[in-house]
Amino acid sequence: MYRILELLRQSEDYLSGEDIGKRLEVSRAAVWKGIKKLREEGYAIEAVTHRGYRLVHPEAMYNQAEIANGMPTKIMGQHVHFYTSIDTTNNRARELAHEGAPEGTLVVAETQTAGRGRRGRVWESAEGSGIWMSLVLRPEIMPAQASVLTLLCGLAVAEALEEETGLLPQIKWPNDVLINGKKVVGILTEMDCEMTQVHFVIPGIGINVNTKEFPPELADIATSLYLESGKSFSRSRLVHAVMAKIEKHYMEFLHTKSFAVLLVAYRKRCMTLGKEVEVRGTKTFLAQALDVTEGGELLVRNLSNDKEEIVYSGEVSIRGVKV
Amino acid sequence: MYRILELLRQSEDYLSGEDIGKRLEVSRAAVWKGIKKLREEGYAIEAVTHRGYRLVHPEAMYNQAEIANGMPTKIMGQHVHFYTSIDTTNNRARELAHEGAPEGTLVVAETQTAGRGRRGRVWESAEGSGIWMSLVLRPEIMPAQASVLTLLCGLAVAEALEEETGLLPQIKWPNDVLINGKKVVGILTEMDCEMTQVHFVIPGIGINVNTKEFPPELADIATSLYLESGKSFSRSRLVHAVMAKIEKHYMEFLHTKSFAVLLVAYRKRCMTLGKEVEVRGTKTFLAQALDVTEGGELLVRNLSNDKEEIVYSGEVSIRGVKV
Repeated sequence: MYRILELLRQSEDYLSGEDIGKRLEVSRAAVWKGIKKLREEGYAIEAVTHRGYRLVHPEAMYNQAEIANGMPTKIMGQHVHFYTSIDTTNNRARELAHEGAPEGTLVVAETQTAGRGRRGRVWESAEGSGIWMSLVLRPEIMPAQASVLTLLCGLAVAEALEEETGLLPQIKWPNDVLINGKKVVGILTEMDCEMTQVHFVIPGIGINVNTKEFPPELADIATSLYLESGKSFSRSRLVHAVMAKIEKHYMEFLHTKSFAVLLVAYRKRCMTLGKEVEVRGTKTFLAQALDVTEGGELLVRNLSNDKEEIVYSGEVSIRGVKV
Repeated sequence: MYRILELLRQSEDYLSGEDIGKRLEVSRAAVWKGIKKLREEGYAIEAVTHRGYRLVHPEAMYNQAEIANGMPTKIMGQHVHFYTSIDTTNNRARELAHEGAPEGTLVVAETQTAGRGRRGRVWESAEGSGIWMSLVLRPEIMPAQASVLTLLCGLAVAEALEEETGLLPQIKWPNDVLINGKKVVGILTEMDCEMTQVHFVIPGIGINVNTKEFPPELADIATSLYLESGKSFSRSRLVHAVMAKIEKHYMEFLHTKSFAVLLVAYRKRCMTLGKEVEVRGTKTFLAQALDVTEGGELLVRNLSNDKEEIVYSGEVSIRGVKV
């Protein structure tokens, strides 16, 4: 069946059932069965008498074959595990990592039944509308260096979305991606390590792609690429773009073992900088966000005592932004 | 069977089969069967005509019942999972933690088939001779704070062993425990976390207790409590002592979210301080070990440039010490 798919994909014109049968050395009945199965899987295959079959918009499909096909990377996404439904892609990626899955292993799900945001918050991950995926990274770094990987992923996703959609995604420190002040991407990064050695890091990335409408309680704070642009996007193609950007930035990071090379691009996109923010941790205070450090922390000036402080945790809200 | 064990344990004198039967409301034949089973499990039960049964040295036994019985703690070791053989207790503890096991859950094995030291090194964990155990901790701290937990465990184990054996265990930074320059305890701490929140920490603790002899390649660097004292020790009792010390220090740590309160005791026991050391990391250099910081790092003076440096990783050897 997937051999028929490949032939149709490569052909710019219609292909007759006889042609396909000859090339694959199978009967016309077998070709017809294969076409039927592909249609059942959701592929749009046009059939015209005396001309044959033609594949229409395969990029609209979202499955193992379409995600793996044309992945423009050497490592990231080179092993794809696709599930129509799963508890969370992070859980599955962690299991695969414990079983020895190589770096770049990508878990993608059409829907998650127990999607999580940071700190155990629920993350909506409905069918058909978004990208819910997790990646296995195995960097040879200390655990303390791993937190910049989550900023790196935020930057990579924002850049990929800009290239693919023309929209202008910004980053709310540390790694939420917002468009016009509403959240379009959430990232939950988990890690398994010894005290002086990382075993693996799992960035889990959720992107609201073709969501047409959010429930009232989310409508003010969440958005999708569709809602911002009025267009639908191929999720498979977006996955390719995101994997390419993550691979590029990850290699830069590993090469220098430092986030410094990426900081210029990150700072430009980081809408938190220069704003008045509320920091909520062991104490809550208002501050001016000054800079992001090479360690990925946020440098702020505490407005109550005018002193500079380093913020490690992500509980920082920007004045005037509801997310 | 365990009800008979409890009766025997509580009784200072011999107990007749008839007495036991009456108290438990079972037949004398059932009592006899229970005694037989306990003996098969390894319990020494003396039987004297006209007097009855008596339990001899139950503390020599090492199983779920003996470890759970008399555990002098509120949290640590309150849930014991005992295995005669398992791949590694850290793996099992991690699985239990993912399934929601509460803080203090303790996994103990008579032998490990794939025991690991730090950085994937093999750890010998033979039957009958040592304590191989892992604990589930769920501290509400940032990942960066977790590294002091491994120092905390090293300190707790060293103190417990001193109290139980009269020997003088010292700590080689960060957490090896040595007696007379040879390693008697190894600790491998693993962690599962988000970037700003720890899910759980698993300290895995290996103690060479009654080992009579090490293979030639280890004889210079490894020792056991038996080899240092000429005495055998009850492993169940040692587990109790270690759990009590870890609980005490852990509570102190959580109360202040700082290692500072424990640093005085740690520094006293830390044989690394004041010594000439070789630091092996991205670069290798000789240094003078000066102090341990509140973050658990080692402060050294680099002898090649006379500058002070902070060492995070555990690859530090002491001049004149082979371990």
